[in-house]
Amino acid sequence: MELDSNLDVEIWPDIKSQDRVSFAVAWKQPKNQFSQYPNLKVVSSLGAGADHLLKDSSISQHVALTRVVAPTLTDQMCDFVTLSILAMMRRFHDYNKQQVWADWKPRLHYNKADVTVGIMGLGNIGKRVAVRLTENGFSVSGWSNSKKNIPNVVTYTKEQLDPFLASTNILVCLLPLTKETKDILNLSLFKKLSNPGFLVNVARGAHLVEEDLIYALDMGLLNHAALDVFQKEPLPESHPFWGRDSITITPHIASVTEPEEIAELILENYKRMRSSMELLNRVDRYRGY
Amino acid sequence: MELDSNLDVEIWPDIKSQDRVSFAVAWKQPKNQFSQYPNLKVVSSLGAGADHLLKDSSISQHVALTRVVAPTLTDQMCDFVTLSILAMMRRFHDYNKQQVWADWKPRLHYNKADVTVGIMGLGNIGKRVAVRLTENGFSVSGWSNSKKNIPNVVTYTKEQLDPFLASTNILVCLLPLTKETKDILNLSLFKKLSNPGFLVNVARGAHLVEEDLIYALDMGLLNHAALDVFQKEPLPESHPFWGRDSITITPHIASVTEPEEIAELILENYKRMRSSMELLNRVDRYRGY
Repeated sequence: MELDSNLDVEIWPDIKSQDRVSFAVAWKQPKNQFSQYPNLKVVSSLGAGADHLLKDSSISQHVALTRVVAPTLTDQMCDFVTLSILAMMRRFHDYNKQQVWADWKPRLHYNKADVTVGIMGLGNIGKRVAVRLTENGFSVSGWSNSKKNIPNVVTYTKEQLDPFLASTNILVCLLPLTKETKDILNLSLFKKLSNPGFLVNVARGAHLVEEDLIYALDMGLLNHAALDVFQKEPLPESHPFWGRDSITITPHIASVTEPEEIAELILENYKRMRSSMELLNRVDRYRGY
Repeated sequence: MELDSNLDVEIWPDIKSQDRVSFAVAWKQPKNQFSQYPNLKVVSSLGAGADHLLKDSSISQHVALTRVVAPTLTDQMCDFVTLSILAMMRRFHDYNKQQVWADWKPRLHYNKADVTVGIMGLGNIGKRVAVRLTENGFSVSGWSNSKKNIPNVVTYTKEQLDPFLASTNILVCLLPLTKETKDILNLSLFKKLSNPGFLVNVARGAHLVEEDLIYALDMGLLNHAALDVFQKEPLPESHPFWGRDSITITPHIASVTEPEEIAELILENYKRMRSSMELLNRVDRYRGY
């Protein structure tokens, strides 16, 4: 309302008149609320993911779904993935632990020239992350549903998953969560990666079969994993990931919504709806993202 | 000798014939050894720094000093500075500590748009680090003896130290160690930095007045420091730096010599000496680097 003082905004559950609601904004909403709004036309996610909208059966098929693709969110993701990869290569987590014991011990580092980063998912964010990593001197490849052309990045399509994995040391998951990508980070996939192997999951917790990751680390299929998302968040105190030296945990902070930026992008789509213009960043129910 | 089987190499202290030595390679050498070699023409450092040669009074003024500028060393430094800065901005050290306690607590991050990185020293390495940081979306400025032109980097010269510091939040020290730069990272300098303030020292331990850093952190002049070099290395177990949450310690690993690469560069200068060609990366005794 700071951006547009004429805007009529109501905050759930204090909705005065349900049939006046045409545009809704939702994130981790309670189940089955949307059938109460007969004139709903658009539901916007508050972030880049729309899986919480796609699995809500109370949203009619006639309602358009949109998501938010914010430059700052994308840039934060580029920073975070670069940081996570460099930290694993340069063994920052070991040095952090050593500091507690006043232990001065240089370690062998992983060499940039010996590894390839493989990005799963080359949407708006995946593409930008791939380019940023090439700017940081990494060899980068990418895997996506449709063929993409990105400078200095070797790209693979859906049916080329195996050669993509065989050429990858550092696997970065930036996939949308769909029926097809759920559980995709599993033991059979980890076995196909090149050695040494690393995982960065900054997409959704449900992409990863958590017990398979522990097994893969134990078997030496993977050397280290950096996880920002989990099946259950907050990650329960008793979860075995917390105590693992070879897993770095961050509390879902890879990219953090900036309210002002998001508000402007959502307002733009609201105006587009009012003027019957094409919506930005529409979610395709068939593709699932 | 793997690179050139005709090469006549002797390892100190097993030198058979001192008057046959024309080219020496040294790193942290024992004091006052060089007067024993009457036909010495060149002494090469094993790394980018030459302070250990400049302060050795047994090296005659007629002997040429060289240092090694290796692309891999430079690239490692770019990676390490990028990593150190991103880790401080995204509070990786806090998350590392939280993991020990299974503590899921997102924190406020420092925003890239709110900070400027200032590089002290724009030699071969400093220039490359500055460019890399711009590629990672940072606002970057640099300070050096002579005027430099680097795309997208605001540069300041020697007498413009104060305006350089006033515009800097994240100060990166990549200076050579000379009489003029010793102790340059001191309380009076920290007071001139912009808020929030961060320090990355990857040059030499003697650039930093260590007690001034602790005072500056206590006073809130600085928020965090990442140190890879120290007055005394290994950093003594009893040193107060170890226990500070606001100091990140790495054991002088920002860039690590790769023997093959260094050997080739030194051999090149040996051949140049033999053919009376101009030496590469000569150290200027007057400038002190």
